[in-house]
Amino acid sequence: MQLGMIGLGRMGSNMVQRLLRAGQDCVVYDSHPEAGKALAEQGATACDSLQALVDVLERPRAVWLMVPAGVVDNVLDELIPLLDADDIVIDGGNSYYHDDIRRAKQLRDASLHYMDVGTSGGVFGLDRGYCLMVGGDAQAFTRMEPVFEALAPGADAAPATPNRRDHGTAARGYLHCGSHGAGHFVKMVHNGIEYGIMAAYAEGLNILHRANIGKQERGIDAETTPLRHPEHFQYDLDIPEITELWRRGSVIGSWLLDLTAQALQSDHSLAGYAGRVSDSGEGRWSLAAAIDQGVPAPVLSAALFSRFESRGNADYANRVLSAMRHQFGGHVEKDGEAQA
Amino acid sequence: MQLGMIGLGRMGSNMVQRLLRAGQDCVVYDSHPEAGKALAEQGATACDSLQALVDVLERPRAVWLMVPAGVVDNVLDELIPLLDADDIVIDGGNSYYHDDIRRAKQLRDASLHYMDVGTSGGVFGLDRGYCLMVGGDAQAFTRMEPVFEALAPGADAAPATPNRRDHGTAARGYLHCGSHGAGHFVKMVHNGIEYGIMAAYAEGLNILHRANIGKQERGIDAETTPLRHPEHFQYDLDIPEITELWRRGSVIGSWLLDLTAQALQSDHSLAGYAGRVSDSGEGRWSLAAAIDQGVPAPVLSAALFSRFESRGNADYANRVLSAMRHQFGGHVEKDGEAQA
Amino acid sequence: MQLGMIGLGRMGSNMVQRLLRAGQDCVVYDSHPEAGKALAEQGATACDSLQALVDVLERPRAVWLMVPAGVVDNVLDELIPLLDADDIVIDGGNSYYHDDIRRAKQLRDASLHYMDVGTSGGVFGLDRGYCLMVGGDAQAFTRMEPVFEALAPGADAAPATPNRRDHGTAARGYLHCGSHGAGHFVKMVHNGIEYGIMAAYAEGLNILHRANIGKQERGIDAETTPLRHPEHFQYDLDIPEITELWRRGSVIGSWLLDLTAQALQSDHSLAGYAGRVSDSGEGRWSLAAAIDQGVPAPVLSAALFSRFESRGNADYANRVLSAMRHQFGGHVEKDGEAQA
Amino acid sequence: MQLGMIGLGRMGSNMVQRLLRAGQDCVVYDSHPEAGKALAEQGATACDSLQALVDVLERPRAVWLMVPAGVVDNVLDELIPLLDADDIVIDGGNSYYHDDIRRAKQLRDASLHYMDVGTSGGVFGLDRGYCLMVGGDAQAFTRMEPVFEALAPGADAAPATPNRRDHGTAARGYLHCGSHGAGHFVKMVHNGIEYGIMAAYAEGLNILHRANIGKQERGIDAETTPLRHPEHFQYDLDIPEITELWRRGSVIGSWLLDLTAQALQSDHSLAGYAGRVSDSGEGRWSLAAAIDQGVPAPVLSAALFSRFESRGNADYANRVLSAMRHQFGGHVEKDGEAQA
Repeated sequence: MQLGMIGLGRMGSNMVQRLLRAGQDCVVYDSHPEAGKALAEQGATACDSLQALVDVLERPRAVWLMVPAGVVDNVLDELIPLLDADDIVIDGGNSYYHDDIRRAKQLRDASLHYMDVGTSGGVFGLDRGYCLMVGGDAQAFTRMEPVFEALAPGADAAPATPNRRDHGTAARGYLHCGSHGAGHFVKMVHNGIEYGIMAAYAEGLNILHRANIGKQERGIDAETTPLRHPEHFQYDLDIPEITELWRRGSVIGSWLLDLTAQALQSDHSLAGYAGRVSDSGEGRWSLAAAIDQGVPAPVLSAALFSRFESRGNADYANRVLSAMRHQFGGHVEKDGEAQA
Repeated sequence: MQLGMIGLGRMGSNMVQRLLRAGQDCVVYDSHPEAGKALAEQGATACDSLQALVDVLERPRAVWLMVPAGVVDNVLDELIPLLDADDIVIDGGNSYYHDDIRRAKQLRDASLHYMDVGTSGGVFGLDRGYCLMVGGDAQAFTRMEPVFEALAPGADAAPATPNRRDHGTAARGYLHCGSHGAGHFVKMVHNGIEYGIMAAYAEGLNILHRANIGKQERGIDAETTPLRHPEHFQYDLDIPEITELWRRGSVIGSWLLDLTAQALQSDHSLAGYAGRVSDSGEGRWSLAAAIDQGVPAPVLSAALFSRFESRGNADYANRVLSAMRHQFGGHVEKDGEAQA
Repeated sequence: MQLGMIGLGRMGSNMVQRLLRAGQDCVVYDSHPEAGKALAEQGATACDSLQALVDVLERPRAVWLMVPAGVVDNVLDELIPLLDADDIVIDGGNSYYHDDIRRAKQLRDASLHYMDVGTSGGVFGLDRGYCLMVGGDAQAFTRMEPVFEALAPGADAAPATPNRRDHGTAARGYLHCGSHGAGHFVKMVHNGIEYGIMAAYAEGLNILHRANIGKQERGIDAETTPLRHPEHFQYDLDIPEITELWRRGSVIGSWLLDLTAQALQSDHSLAGYAGRVSDSGEGRWSLAAAIDQGVPAPVLSAALFSRFESRGNADYANRVLSAMRHQFGGHVEKDGEAQA
Repeated sequence: MQLGMIGLGRMGSNMVQRLLRAGQDCVVYDSHPEAGKALAEQGATACDSLQALVDVLERPRAVWLMVPAGVVDNVLDELIPLLDADDIVIDGGNSYYHDDIRRAKQLRDASLHYMDVGTSGGVFGLDRGYCLMVGGDAQAFTRMEPVFEALAPGADAAPATPNRRDHGTAARGYLHCGSHGAGHFVKMVHNGIEYGIMAAYAEGLNILHRANIGKQERGIDAETTPLRHPEHFQYDLDIPEITELWRRGSVIGSWLLDLTAQALQSDHSLAGYAGRVSDSGEGRWSLAAAIDQGVPAPVLSAALFSRFESRGNADYANRVLSAMRHQFGGHVEKDGEAQA
């Protein structure tokens, strides 16, 4: 099948390569032409404009956008007038599903099909395949299945679920989740869960990290809680080895744990990181959805807020707390070094 | 009534002054003699040793300890052999109630009475009076009531609760909460609540503080969540005035709010604080109790953990998160300045 | 000054009464005419239609809406065509500030002034006065000050903040917080804080409530965590008395604590409540704002989610957890009675 | 190697079978003799008393306890006098590491070796192998390695970590984590992480579960937050298929997700569960350790508290909230059916 890919960054470029490997025909465009040239060497048809890309594609066209969420609307504004009735436009990036609902209407008014495809897999997707969460109308989904099939990991990527009556595509790694926006909705929640899982590991490893706190000197003053039982915190644990250990047989084995073990293998103390953790939208939107729904999401929100705090965004609140303590108790802030 | 006070720091010294004002007879001791001298000028009998204090006090004695939690056992070890049967020893500091249970047994074996008195009021207690949460046996409580009455704020300190059948001392500001440890248990929970209330204000004020975030430039990249509606965050709010406003008629009026308004009055931006917030034990113990009890305490724990994070204790966890993100998505940490 | 009041429910009716007491001239309307009749007996001019109300009011008019947030737009649609240039419309209910921004534009297009006034005080506001957080243009604010002054508690409602240079109205209980929406923004955060404070008390009282858990029999099986130290949980605490106690001299004194003591005075075990806790919007919106801003709000979110959970909204998530535990460990759910 | 196993429940019995398959010599005992008989048919030597088990084992003996944490001390009291110098006793259950430290000393005084082995793997361990986290002295660890090797999953259980310099046993599924208690400490944190991961999935699936909330009727009253955009919540998502989908290629693939997909495969709506989620100690102890260490653990605590809430333990706190709302706003609790 022929697919037009717009946006050849880390994700888009890898996806094209995976499609080419599977024998799909790819026509590609990026505002930075070098990305297209590299793919042309692997068999893609590189274009130097959206118009060129549209001209090359056979009708009805299928165009996949893999661009930052913030520029999707701009690309659509330029692209839509170039397309013809029944063409399909896919947004495979990390758009907010509210925008999908709006854009689907916009494209429908132009007799075009809009699809939103939440795409998980990161930089490893080229080899492992991409997990695809698809929203849109059923007809468009059917037309695009060869592409989804080529991008997805396939059934062998995980052991079969026992007793499963295989009536669908989920077991091969892609799924028509529902109407417009459903794909990004599911991907949004997927990322919300990801934040929670990541934070669970991170907090647990921090407890391991400080298992030797009983060996340290500790200030004795009214501002420092005494450690009642230093003898309980005398362990120097080898966290890289422990993450490796957990990869086999434990209840908490996961791909994220595999990656954590890899990271710790190459940087035992993680000294290469400052610990300012970004968030790119889906975690926030998951939480916004939960709030609208009345769904309690204490773990997902704690994970998100930890990221906010890692970037210093609680500073004002913390100063308020210190000011209150000073007012009622005459407490003076301690120097950071002395505390735990 | 005659009371021996050991420990003449900020709290102990103020309490003696309040007792003297009420006509009580105070015999005082501190390892730093100057504190005693200052009180002697106001009518206290200052002693230069525990032995001297015990010698001066009439039997059966009443001795109040107002020393850091970490040194109570040392003082008791020295004091107990000097006392006689039926003397009362009161720990008015912030001891862990587990220690009270142990110490009460220790004193009972020496035919002494032990009392634990959780004392709230901070530096304002001298004038406002102290809220006293008392644990111990009923006989000792009765003997000590004149002292409690003098230290407590009295009934006029708050409007009468409508329809209250006044059958007890709580409305005057002191209460026999239960057996040994009950006083510090109630004080511990009191402080746990305090942490939660303080954090509620601090978080809310932080939201007000950033109400103008829509006016700021914001990076446009995959690591920064776009602010979808900058027009919703265009307010430059006067937080000192808002805290003053809320003191009158609002549902969230409180003494902590009064103090917050005072702090903001003298330091509008709280630039005098670094935001490293100490915790001194009771919040941790409240949470430990909740865990033992199976009581959900998400707010109290969030408040405690925010203090831990303010002191940099999440750093390792945050580095784990950045390392994971780098592994699966090739994400590189951003410089702090550019983010929100 | 003359004010038209639309909406004579619990809040609107009390506000009119407070205005009448202060000598203000009130013209009132409610879709249920009885409410207006009752106020007419106290001096208000009751109207039986919006048109009548508009006809009675002198120009430039001031009309205050005190109706549920969900019907504000309907009332405005009917009201706006009846008004004349320079009239002021105030929304004193609990509207979302996003709506204020939109409505202010709508009214500006009709040469009208829009104001949003966050109003705190509840059923006690009639006597205590209302805390007023005002958004809108400065000209309209100035015109409305006599009304705000009459509704607000006044300076005597709280002790003066020491060293305050009184340059504004906040110390009298009303404040021009900023442009359109600023009033409801501040009120929204106020309510978010309120949720957090309430939850802090509730969690703390729950720890007190279960302080006797060591006296209870406890199942001994792999599904129940043993209570390692039952001797630490032997207290039967008198929670009504403890809340009364904390009202005097303690750091956590507040109006919400006063009300809690009152509630416990009349219903010692709170048996009259089922514990299904509603939320009416502001808490959700506060959290949504925090998420947009990147502000960590772990306490405010925990408070909100506890309310969601109190209404059974975590049920599906909990069943997922039980299903997982059954899968990996063969764990069978326990009957509720046996657990803690 | 020869091993004595005490406790032949689900875990102990499976472990013996795995050892027998690996050619190890197992001597077994359980207070319920049938369990031993079943294993005898597979080659184990079943004993009818602790004395008999000790008599059969060759010196120096190795005895593994796989009994509930609450009975370990009783078994040790009976077992220790029967053993001889240099014998090894292993606690493979879910003991608190504080107890390990105490017991190690107790056994050392009797010239015995104590080891604590945190064992993860659940009912699937028989076939997948057990992940073993070991604490104790190095000499005992070395002697026991053949048993650990046989129980552990082995290197093939997971793909090799790239660039790993294989200098240890972790990559085969067992690790000497440190001195006495270190094994259970690591297992404790492992389970704390497990709680967090489980809750992340559960909360996320709950958001998916309620993605159709916009289709439902909703009360319009002051106690119910309006759903501003019902059009955003119109999805009927197939959660069993989505969990299957995520197993392939996504960032959140894990063994717990595999199990979740299995559970949903056999019970699509999880109607077979009531959602009362037990906790068995390690989550609580992880959190207690974090508190002692000053480590923020908001996700792990949120996960634990959700379990507490699922069992109704927030009921009193919720009634307090309803009482407060009634006091200040006259709010009356709503019937549960009508809310979201």
